[in-house]
Amino acid sequence: MAAEISRRTLVELIGRIAGAATAYSALNMAGLLDTPTAHAAPPALRPGSGNGKRIAILGAGIAGLTAAYCLGKAGYQCTVLEARSRSGGRVWTIRGGDRIAETDSTQRVEWTTDRDIYLNAGAARLSSHHQGILGYCRDLGVPLELFVNDNRAALVQFDDQFDGKPQTARRLQADLRGAIAALAAKSVPNDERVRTVLRIFGDLRGDLSYAGSSRAGFTADGTPGSGTQRGRLQPPLPLDEIAGPASVKMALALCFAELWQQAPTMLQPVGGMDAIVRAFDRTLDGVIRHNEEVVQIDRVGDGARVISLDRSTGRRSALDADFVICTIPLSVLEHIPADFSPAVSHAIKVGAKLYFPAVKVAFEAPRRWWEIDQQLYGGISWTGRDITQIWYPSHGFHGSKGVLVGAYIWTQDAARRFTEMTPAERHAAAISDGERLHPGYEKLVGPAASVAWAKVPYSLGAWIEWETSSGARQSEYPTLLAGDGPFYFAGEHMSYVTAWQEGAVQSAHYTVAQIAERVATTNK
Amino acid sequence: MAAEISRRTLVELIGRIAGAATAYSALNMAGLLDTPTAHAAPPALRPGSGNGKRIAILGAGIAGLTAAYCLGKAGYQCTVLEARSRSGGRVWTIRGGDRIAETDSTQRVEWTTDRDIYLNAGAARLSSHHQGILGYCRDLGVPLELFVNDNRAALVQFDDQFDGKPQTARRLQADLRGAIAALAAKSVPNDERVRTVLRIFGDLRGDLSYAGSSRAGFTADGTPGSGTQRGRLQPPLPLDEIAGPASVKMALALCFAELWQQAPTMLQPVGGMDAIVRAFDRTLDGVIRHNEEVVQIDRVGDGARVISLDRSTGRRSALDADFVICTIPLSVLEHIPADFSPAVSHAIKVGAKLYFPAVKVAFEAPRRWWEIDQQLYGGISWTGRDITQIWYPSHGFHGSKGVLVGAYIWTQDAARRFTEMTPAERHAAAISDGERLHPGYEKLVGPAASVAWAKVPYSLGAWIEWETSSGARQSEYPTLLAGDGPFYFAGEHMSYVTAWQEGAVQSAHYTVAQIAERVATTNK
Repeated sequence: MAAEISRRTLVELIGRIAGAATAYSALNMAGLLDTPTAHAAPPALRPGSGNGKRIAILGAGIAGLTAAYCLGKAGYQCTVLEARSRSGGRVWTIRGGDRIAETDSTQRVEWTTDRDIYLNAGAARLSSHHQGILGYCRDLGVPLELFVNDNRAALVQFDDQFDGKPQTARRLQADLRGAIAALAAKSVPNDERVRTVLRIFGDLRGDLSYAGSSRAGFTADGTPGSGTQRGRLQPPLPLDEIAGPASVKMALALCFAELWQQAPTMLQPVGGMDAIVRAFDRTLDGVIRHNEEVVQIDRVGDGARVISLDRSTGRRSALDADFVICTIPLSVLEHIPADFSPAVSHAIKVGAKLYFPAVKVAFEAPRRWWEIDQQLYGGISWTGRDITQIWYPSHGFHGSKGVLVGAYIWTQDAARRFTEMTPAERHAAAISDGERLHPGYEKLVGPAASVAWAKVPYSLGAWIEWETSSGARQSEYPTLLAGDGPFYFAGEHMSYVTAWQEGAVQSAHYTVAQIAERVATTNK
Repeated sequence: MAAEISRRTLVELIGRIAGAATAYSALNMAGLLDTPTAHAAPPALRPGSGNGKRIAILGAGIAGLTAAYCLGKAGYQCTVLEARSRSGGRVWTIRGGDRIAETDSTQRVEWTTDRDIYLNAGAARLSSHHQGILGYCRDLGVPLELFVNDNRAALVQFDDQFDGKPQTARRLQADLRGAIAALAAKSVPNDERVRTVLRIFGDLRGDLSYAGSSRAGFTADGTPGSGTQRGRLQPPLPLDEIAGPASVKMALALCFAELWQQAPTMLQPVGGMDAIVRAFDRTLDGVIRHNEEVVQIDRVGDGARVISLDRSTGRRSALDADFVICTIPLSVLEHIPADFSPAVSHAIKVGAKLYFPAVKVAFEAPRRWWEIDQQLYGGISWTGRDITQIWYPSHGFHGSKGVLVGAYIWTQDAARRFTEMTPAERHAAAISDGERLHPGYEKLVGPAASVAWAKVPYSLGAWIEWETSSGARQSEYPTLLAGDGPFYFAGEHMSYVTAWQEGAVQSAHYTVAQIAERVATTNK
């Protein structure tokens, strides 16, 4: 499977995997594709090498912050224009008292003010191999803690399987492995070592059949304990029932934590993802101009002029620069008049249509019932219902309250349905779906908050999906990557790690290197 | 696999799994075995119901602390005799400046004094379904954080596989799943849903063959990034190379986090496992007498008299009690003169031989190179060498120093070899083995500390393995479980959750319930 296959692609295009991806994979293994050196580490720029060159950075998301940080240290004169009153872009942590403004609604978040009570509305986890962003966490002193993607006590529920009753991931995982290992054993060559591995892989019996496993957990009243309580196993769930009508989604739920970006170890900053943003902000004192909405981008000689609107005063101002690093999402950028080349303008228009409308709904719960009653410490439950997932917090264990992510929707149709709803309708729908996993759910959760990214001003989408439009990755992405006179483009969309902060960081490093090389070689 | 199959059994008896375990499993599923109700929650004792009955509790490990806590609240008059100067028993957190006394050596731990610098020499993790011990963490306010068993960036190394070169767990896991799913596909009925599940399970191609996967990670210089860096896949490791000469240990390493007790979510107390012990200690002010070594246990009328030796003053004293809860490990108890029945004495002698001699070696490292250089955040690397495992800390990420568990040995022969060594020899051997996983290891690690549990006074072993002696679980364990006049037995060995604090807690609950019922019904 090719690297760029993303969440949505997995769900919706799973049937097509054998096509382009396999072809790519074959080329890749044959070493026939370009694979330049890694840009995980910041480019090594000589201090003072920027020599006062003026850089206008559009957007104070992770890409803009990274570029400003790197270039500033090298003596470039950076100005970051940010339309919002906060930095971070799609790194957005929501807390009690915050306002959530969408294009057609406003919510006030009625949550307790507490260290552990927050929602990472956008980016919410870090892969341990994301050494670009993790490097900044290290350098800027952002404390990290672990994040749980895979909790075997979590639930998996589909209306048309197991009579709609949720099953534990533990049981499904163990029984699926057992059944697959037993099937494999039928085709295994006469190799004792392979048979041994299969037996242990699936917890098979000596005859290589599968008849249940303690890995699947025990009956509710038969967990191993004291006295004579040695534990009562459950009969295995049959393979053809696991592979039921929801087979694609079921398999995805059970294989999710195997993915390159999602496998353990996963991490999160202590106290909310915006700890990273605050750390960058502290190092960029005076460089970022908040509330400055970019309204026009002009070419002036070899350089550029950026016109912005101060959203508090209504005043327009102009910023002249030798180079512009534009990190504005293409979905927003397409609406800003700009002197881009026709090819770049076209690429922006194509890319702008490829943003994914992800939705999150979160509830403050007055009691951490998922831990106390259900032994759920972090992790993700899955359902075929629109809410797709419920996340239990990976922090604040045994505290008095907690925030539950009651929906994280990243399938196209469900996300569109939730995006079209009012916040109140979304919250009611999330409660109704959640009831399938947790009976009595409505009484278990408290005040709600939600974010439909397609309706969030200055974002208008959650992340780009280049691979969903045939050929856009091959035709439009390289056009933007090459830059356009004084204009360069950065952000998660300018990477092969889309939807992740790591993509933003690495694209910023790439762009910084592009500019530094140009300055060094042409002395522009 | 039966519930009671433990670590050692898994490794050493894997070939025998099909025997007794299967028979048990069949009986179990048929519902033919007793499975009494759970004892996870403390028994509900009426306040004052103890009515001043005198309870001597021998040992201030988790079982003793739990029993004292429960009975004290119900009006029993408890005294805990503990030979050590600390509570906790095999819950032992070692820090800079501590002394480690074994029967034939003493170490002083030359580590920095720091919140994150410690070794949990005994119990080191909590399963999220261990609601007995987790319930006390909740009630007593012990803060918890996550613990990583499964880190896909961790390494797996066997001298006789892959030329002795370590492979990432990520790559082995992905390629093993792929190969097994592809084998299974050959025997799959003509069921499109099952084929879909297999395809996703193994990341197979459309023709259900396996040709590598992004789940396995990428080449060192070909991780997906920015620019044109889309990621370069690695060719799959062949199944017959994964299932090489070390097939049993390889499979165990790759399946370890599937086990009932080891699957996610795993937890640890913040700052060291002994946070649980300190929390109990605070509630038991005046109840525990430290430095009191039990030297004789007598029966007096219907009750008992326990003679102890004050290890600081050398003074002997006698404690009279209506009941005795003996939590002393059988390996230690067998050496204490006691008025037990012949059957109980025999059971103790048999059980005393079944303790496992686990060994841990830990190093303070001057730099967290596993995170900075190798992107290893928590988790466990595996080797066929004696050290068996290296643990990277699940806390203190990106800090200046860290403690690495450089050996956790729980295979019989290797543990005996390390137990026989002096501490200095162990540390040198651990460095030599660790070199196989981390080249230059000797220079990467600093001061060492080690614990060979078979040589730790008042423990003389790490945990019991009832299942290793044919029939001991069936014959001796029930004898101890029934009690003996005023004498009751508790501790991890008195449970089906041996080697875990949960077993100690649940056995204490069981014993408390036994005593309370006897007091209520016989008014003894």
